[in-house]
Amino acid sequence: MHSKQTALVLLSGGLDSSVLLHHVHQSNNYDSIQALGYNYGQRHLRELDCAQAQVDMLPHGRLKIVDISFMGGLLAEGTSLVSEGAEVPDLDSLSEDDLSQPPTYVPNRNMMLLSIAAAYAEAEGIRDIYYGAQAHDEYGYWDCTEEFLTRINAVLSLNRKDAITVHAPFVGMKKNELVSRGVELGVNFARTWSCYRGGENPCETCPTCVERSNAFRDAGESDPLLKV
Amino acid sequence: MHSKQTALVLLSGGLDSSVLLHHVHQSNNYDSIQALGYNYGQRHLRELDCAQAQVDMLPHGRLKIVDISFMGGLLAEGTSLVSEGAEVPDLDSLSEDDLSQPPTYVPNRNMMLLSIAAAYAEAEGIRDIYYGAQAHDEYGYWDCTEEFLTRINAVLSLNRKDAITVHAPFVGMKKNELVSRGVELGVNFARTWSCYRGGENPCETCPTCVERSNAFRDAGESDPLLKV
Repeated sequence: MHSKQTALVLLSGGLDSSVLLHHVHQSNNYDSIQALGYNYGQRHLRELDCAQAQVDMLPHGRLKIVDISFMGGLLAEGTSLVSEGAEVPDLDSLSEDDLSQPPTYVPNRNMMLLSIAAAYAEAEGIRDIYYGAQAHDEYGYWDCTEEFLTRINAVLSLNRKDAITVHAPFVGMKKNELVSRGVELGVNFARTWSCYRGGENPCETCPTCVERSNAFRDAGESDPLLKV
Repeated sequence: MHSKQTALVLLSGGLDSSVLLHHVHQSNNYDSIQALGYNYGQRHLRELDCAQAQVDMLPHGRLKIVDISFMGGLLAEGTSLVSEGAEVPDLDSLSEDDLSQPPTYVPNRNMMLLSIAAAYAEAEGIRDIYYGAQAHDEYGYWDCTEEFLTRINAVLSLNRKDAITVHAPFVGMKKNELVSRGVELGVNFARTWSCYRGGENPCETCPTCVERSNAFRDAGESDPLLKV
């Protein structure tokens, strides 16, 4: 870690990466924080609005949005996360087999996002990248594990001039622990967005809505996004 | 390698990847070949025209072009390969230090391209990816080495359902050996494009023009692209 430089934080505007942003800021290891958001043809842009809102709460934060909407045409049949894909299913309609790689899984998503982040970091002279992988995701996504991260860093360490390191400080934590950490940091959860569907309010039935709701419950907190 | 399936070949329309395309076709290990070309805001699209021409020479070839022009805005200051960047320098104007990571180097380029290719392969049910890294590139690019490839495959092997393998059969060969292999395969070199500049004819002074010219000379062949 390079003290007092810039950190690059992958920021979707969801719960995990928003907590991560403030976690890195609070660590006080960096002069400034650069957030990187991806517009990949999501069903809605509310996530990116939330990302901007989170960055605006930092004294020296900037958000760069990368348009990677090519992923829509590339992967439309393989995922329901982009607008052209299939409908987002309810969590309780999924079988065990689906859950080993759920329909919201985007093929090789994290390797693409981290590769792009590393390219941007290298071009900007940034050495440290943070991303919000956490333990719960291991159930559904092979590309959220600690081993995945280790191997990504093994690739990046080959760079002769500007070796970049990806840090995932939450990789051993559960989502409810992230909620607790967020509360500790004073994160404004009303300005985070997790629902895969694009409605006015969270649908409360899609996989991430259910996961988020369970995380708040297990942390003994209430989600300000939900009507009481 | 999965016999009689589809192979995905990364095809720029340059010399190396064009030879690779026909090399994979001639191996007879696949029913069909899918080529993947990248439009990343190159200074000219002649490369992609050549890629299409090469694919058209195969009985069962298809070319998919992915628009990754986001790289222009992401990396404009870091490279001269995209239109917004600096001028392409002549090879003989470069210092030793430049050559360890030349100005035509695109930050983390191959990791991005291979990540995207792997995502596409996974979505299409393709297990084998071919890319045209070869030994000469080791002098300039950390992301063309055998070790790089090994580590990329170490990442991809973690995929629980659809592990994909990247093959680089030319990684131990020199560019002049690729010319010889291309002659053997009957590759139409007049329909390959290497020059980084966008003129009517190759400039004959940019780094890849010089490398190409040396490769043809060392192979004892003449380049049909050059006027005699």
